[in-house]
Amino acid sequence: MKRVHPGHLRSVIATNIRTLRNARGLSQQAFALEIEMDRTYLGGVERGERNVSLDNIERIAEGLGVEPWMLLRNPGGS
Amino acid sequence: MKRVHPGHLRSVIATNIRTLRNARGLSQQAFALEIEMDRTYLGGVERGERNVSLDNIERIAEGLGVEPWMLLRNPGGS
Repeated sequence: MKRVHPGHLRSVIATNIRTLRNARGLSQQAFALEIEMDRTYLGGVERGERNVSLDNIERIAEGLGVEPWMLLRNPGGS
Repeated sequence: MKRVHPGHLRSVIATNIRTLRNARGLSQQAFALEIEMDRTYLGGVERGERNVSLDNIERIAEGLGVEPWMLLRNPGGS
């Protein structure tokens, strides 16, 4: 199977979530509490360790006040 | 927890995958084979029944030749 950049998307979403969460002045713990997500799970997502699911992407995006697709866009532009 | 449209994202990605796959003239079976994904799993994703993961979103997008974030955009515009 051809994979241009295996797992690249994990680091993209990790960076985007961290950036947006920090921009809103929320700690990981506060944000996890707000969206009712386990803090260690959220931490894993923000480190690119978790293969986060669509439903959780939706939940995180709602908490950050952005459209879900925005979390998948390469911050460097793509 | 506030959820504007619970599970809405599943139907968005389902529609986008089906539309792009059909536009490329690929059957579900042919496409599943090409990206080495179980056909019934892909079928479930295309019906919005599966909580598809980030790694699989990446794999499907690569197979369709689009950026992963494009699969999450509301076809009706949002």
